[in-house]
Amino acid sequence: MNYGLVIDTVFKQILAEPSNGHVASYIPELLKVNPDCFGVALTLIDNTSYSIGDAEIKFSIQSIAKVFSLALGYKTLGDKIWERVGVEPSGTAFNSLLQLEADHGKPRNPFINSGALVICDILLSQIKDVKSELLAFIRHISDNQSIDYSPNIALSEKLNGFRNIALCNFIKSFHNIHNHPEDVLDLYFNLCSIEMTCSELSKSFLFLANDGKKTTDQSTILTSSQTKRINAVMQTCGFYDESGEFTFKVGLPGKSGVGGGILAIHPKLYSIVTWSPRLNEKGNSEKGMKFLELFTTQTKYSIF
Amino acid sequence: MNYGLVIDTVFKQILAEPSNGHVASYIPELLKVNPDCFGVALTLIDNTSYSIGDAEIKFSIQSIAKVFSLALGYKTLGDKIWERVGVEPSGTAFNSLLQLEADHGKPRNPFINSGALVICDILLSQIKDVKSELLAFIRHISDNQSIDYSPNIALSEKLNGFRNIALCNFIKSFHNIHNHPEDVLDLYFNLCSIEMTCSELSKSFLFLANDGKKTTDQSTILTSSQTKRINAVMQTCGFYDESGEFTFKVGLPGKSGVGGGILAIHPKLYSIVTWSPRLNEKGNSEKGMKFLELFTTQTKYSIF
Amino acid sequence: MNYGLVIDTVFKQILAEPSNGHVASYIPELLKVNPDCFGVALTLIDNTSYSIGDAEIKFSIQSIAKVFSLALGYKTLGDKIWERVGVEPSGTAFNSLLQLEADHGKPRNPFINSGALVICDILLSQIKDVKSELLAFIRHISDNQSIDYSPNIALSEKLNGFRNIALCNFIKSFHNIHNHPEDVLDLYFNLCSIEMTCSELSKSFLFLANDGKKTTDQSTILTSSQTKRINAVMQTCGFYDESGEFTFKVGLPGKSGVGGGILAIHPKLYSIVTWSPRLNEKGNSEKGMKFLELFTTQTKYSIF
Amino acid sequence: MNYGLVIDTVFKQILAEPSNGHVASYIPELLKVNPDCFGVALTLIDNTSYSIGDAEIKFSIQSIAKVFSLALGYKTLGDKIWERVGVEPSGTAFNSLLQLEADHGKPRNPFINSGALVICDILLSQIKDVKSELLAFIRHISDNQSIDYSPNIALSEKLNGFRNIALCNFIKSFHNIHNHPEDVLDLYFNLCSIEMTCSELSKSFLFLANDGKKTTDQSTILTSSQTKRINAVMQTCGFYDESGEFTFKVGLPGKSGVGGGILAIHPKLYSIVTWSPRLNEKGNSEKGMKFLELFTTQTKYSIF
Repeated sequence: MNYGLVIDTVFKQILAEPSNGHVASYIPELLKVNPDCFGVALTLIDNTSYSIGDAEIKFSIQSIAKVFSLALGYKTLGDKIWERVGVEPSGTAFNSLLQLEADHGKPRNPFINSGALVICDILLSQIKDVKSELLAFIRHISDNQSIDYSPNIALSEKLNGFRNIALCNFIKSFHNIHNHPEDVLDLYFNLCSIEMTCSELSKSFLFLANDGKKTTDQSTILTSSQTKRINAVMQTCGFYDESGEFTFKVGLPGKSGVGGGILAIHPKLYSIVTWSPRLNEKGNSEKGMKFLELFTTQTKYSIF
Repeated sequence: MNYGLVIDTVFKQILAEPSNGHVASYIPELLKVNPDCFGVALTLIDNTSYSIGDAEIKFSIQSIAKVFSLALGYKTLGDKIWERVGVEPSGTAFNSLLQLEADHGKPRNPFINSGALVICDILLSQIKDVKSELLAFIRHISDNQSIDYSPNIALSEKLNGFRNIALCNFIKSFHNIHNHPEDVLDLYFNLCSIEMTCSELSKSFLFLANDGKKTTDQSTILTSSQTKRINAVMQTCGFYDESGEFTFKVGLPGKSGVGGGILAIHPKLYSIVTWSPRLNEKGNSEKGMKFLELFTTQTKYSIF
Repeated sequence: MNYGLVIDTVFKQILAEPSNGHVASYIPELLKVNPDCFGVALTLIDNTSYSIGDAEIKFSIQSIAKVFSLALGYKTLGDKIWERVGVEPSGTAFNSLLQLEADHGKPRNPFINSGALVICDILLSQIKDVKSELLAFIRHISDNQSIDYSPNIALSEKLNGFRNIALCNFIKSFHNIHNHPEDVLDLYFNLCSIEMTCSELSKSFLFLANDGKKTTDQSTILTSSQTKRINAVMQTCGFYDESGEFTFKVGLPGKSGVGGGILAIHPKLYSIVTWSPRLNEKGNSEKGMKFLELFTTQTKYSIF
Repeated sequence: MNYGLVIDTVFKQILAEPSNGHVASYIPELLKVNPDCFGVALTLIDNTSYSIGDAEIKFSIQSIAKVFSLALGYKTLGDKIWERVGVEPSGTAFNSLLQLEADHGKPRNPFINSGALVICDILLSQIKDVKSELLAFIRHISDNQSIDYSPNIALSEKLNGFRNIALCNFIKSFHNIHNHPEDVLDLYFNLCSIEMTCSELSKSFLFLANDGKKTTDQSTILTSSQTKRINAVMQTCGFYDESGEFTFKVGLPGKSGVGGGILAIHPKLYSIVTWSPRLNEKGNSEKGMKFLELFTTQTKYSIF
């Protein structure tokens, strides 16, 4: 398979298509980005990599960071984390609060905001100096010491994060947040503020395609079983209420962020990341979704 | 991989475990079954097969039949069926009617009852003498002319099917049922009444592991793309509000029925069917779920 | 108080105002009405009456008939009816099915469709030849033998009543409908099909302003306590999700119908009925609501 | 009518009945109360008053205070407040957050917590030094300078008020809170912390039975129309999801608080307040509800 050629061809095709999507506007910082940026990076488990377009520009990874926090939480607490957060898709954005109420404060999965807040709460309870440790973990799996929180974005998230503040206090009222909501929210807003490039993200998450081991030194990040399960949860829950659509069209486990990034994993083969800030109405990158659909069609690869 | 040995070992282990599950009781016919039946049948795409326990006893396949109707509907109408039914998981049983209302009568996916009713409506509009044709289709892909509707079970479903009658009329009020509700329900109740054995089911659905082609003569049932997409929808939506759990634990696309059957597909490898009538509280076969979890763990195979 | 003068003045004012409302269109029969009809009839408990405009034209009373069925059901079964149907407002049209699910098939109150269906079911269980007896009851309290079901409207309701068929079967699935859904729906569709004039309705329901006694002969229709309670339920539940608005603006217990009629009761004083087929977006008569608001303002009478 | 005798008789009857209700436990301060306290105070609009039992003991009036804030908000901003909060009953406690989402952050009415938070936000925007001014308003209509906030209870509410913090931030995310959530919550928690006796409450709210005028000097607190409308909203929304039940059984507009107090108004006649801390499962005072039901039955007075 000539991945480089497929990426090149598909990239040009999607680049040429018009996009009506809008850049996320809920915090001013996200609006500062050039809406027409478009980059792709692919890394095979043999560490071969391909990239094109704006693959080396840092962007706000937002919810893709929830895979980092889940990985660290899972590594730290093991299967006990599933007592605090579920593995079921949430159905619709529409009824997330209703579900939390019906489920007595146990979020449906770790990739919706409520679930990521509970994972942050778990990290706070388990790890001393967690903000540093989480960053150290990310730098370690990425082999990249430059990765950092963005204080501006974190602050902007906090100043505009009324719905997340609401969620965190709501879960607290069900006793499924153990720390002070302000501390949980501080970690959460910092987590979402991380900025990385397509290439960096693709390399960081390659362990999910490699049975939990870093491809550079085969050291273990997560067990094989934990890795499969994170991939499984990404498959059913990675794209909010478009998770079924992504599974249907792309056929790979993945995770999107409102910054316009999308991560997708082909177990045993590769990790691929796209970035284009214009979002469709479900909040997922329009060109990213289209690129990955065409890419898996042309490579005739999906897990199904 | 010695599949026969793994099946034998895991079967004995699960057989020995106690089960607190209850047999589906919503229609009297289902209660007549021996609750302790337990069978497994596996067929590889090279047509090698393994079976154990009650794999040759016919049981009511119930919702597993929704994969047959979807396959025929997809084959007949192509991607236009997705204008009438979605591909997203429904979240919870709890709010299915709420979702239908919010979604203006478009069911979330073809595997919940509302979605299967819309697929039946599509079949009625597209195919003359559809009850015969649907049966002919199932007999064709199964190479088995003995498969038939069970009039007793269909009648029992009809006499007790108030919730399905409600669903069908509710969707009709949104104009997403085009035929008379009674005709749609008649087809639906017949579809759910089909009785088959684990071995028969495993062979019937093997084309889903073989890129849409029958393994016996390589004739095409569905295109490769259609096949992947049915597998993808089974992955995210095959187990009602336990779809995430099944993906998480078993890691294969599949479909369950309240008769106690479970179908799971490993693309490129095999089709496996379990049957044990005792259900967990989500309405899925307790021993079947456990068997498949252990089976994929021991064979170290899942799609993730 | 010169009621005649107030009615005359307010009627002319409201008549002159433009209306953007639309006539109910869910069944063809309702569309045949002249949308600009407007009539008002008031009857005091001393049997003095005032009427203006199209007060003597028969129209489809639709949901106003639910007060008849509730009265007969309450008279027949007493307070036991409240074991089958509640007395709480339903909040919004939006979530009626969700509420039925959460409340295990017990409708919130007898004036939403689900509740009226349960009342019809109660009548079927309690009264032999109920269609005739219900009509006899209405003719008796109205002193009017000409009141009758409209077979055309009842048939039209039936042919288009998919949502009511859905509701009835849904409640049946919770065992809160005891008779066959078709029989319950037949009674319900006939009940809604009754046609009466403003004057006839005003006289019929005058007993609700007179402590349950007919004003013409002081014979008892309902006990004083039952009468107060029907008024109380009309106050909180008579106008679907605009019940609060009506209480807020008009301040009287009342009941509306999609045919454009509105009944309002001032206990100890009068019964008033308006009719104007153009409905606001909540399904209540636009001019009727405005007339009653202005009427109670000008007479300085409300129960608050 | 010998009110004193009726109160005496009914009080003794209800006092003798056992109660299984529980004292509100969501903040420690409320648990300190003697659960068996029971008091009643009635004031006629001619200023005659009757009281019995623990009518002179101060208790936490909690949500009854929402009538004070609504009165001041209505007086200050007039009918514009209804652009920010509705007048419809909310249906069930169950779906309050769902409704807020469906209604884009506009609470259903001013007596549920979300609505009272919006009223506090309005007061903050309209009135300088609002905490003092609100207290001055309450002291003025009560002719009682001793009424005050309880810092202990306000603090306890704040420390345990995660759900209210969630609500306030959720509404803020819809832009229907204009001030900082912390300031709104501070005012709200103080409002709920006020402690008064049955006698004090009965006298304070007597203006609602007297067309908006203080009975002691006939000075105007609210216009006649505003008064009727507050009564109307209490009628449909005063008892959370038991508002219909209260209207049905008691037939008067009223407002309850989790401290065990209940206020009821008979327009043109009287204001009555009961206090008994044991609550039924809907969160309303058990003995208070029963007393008022029996009281209105025996006095043969209700507004219906």
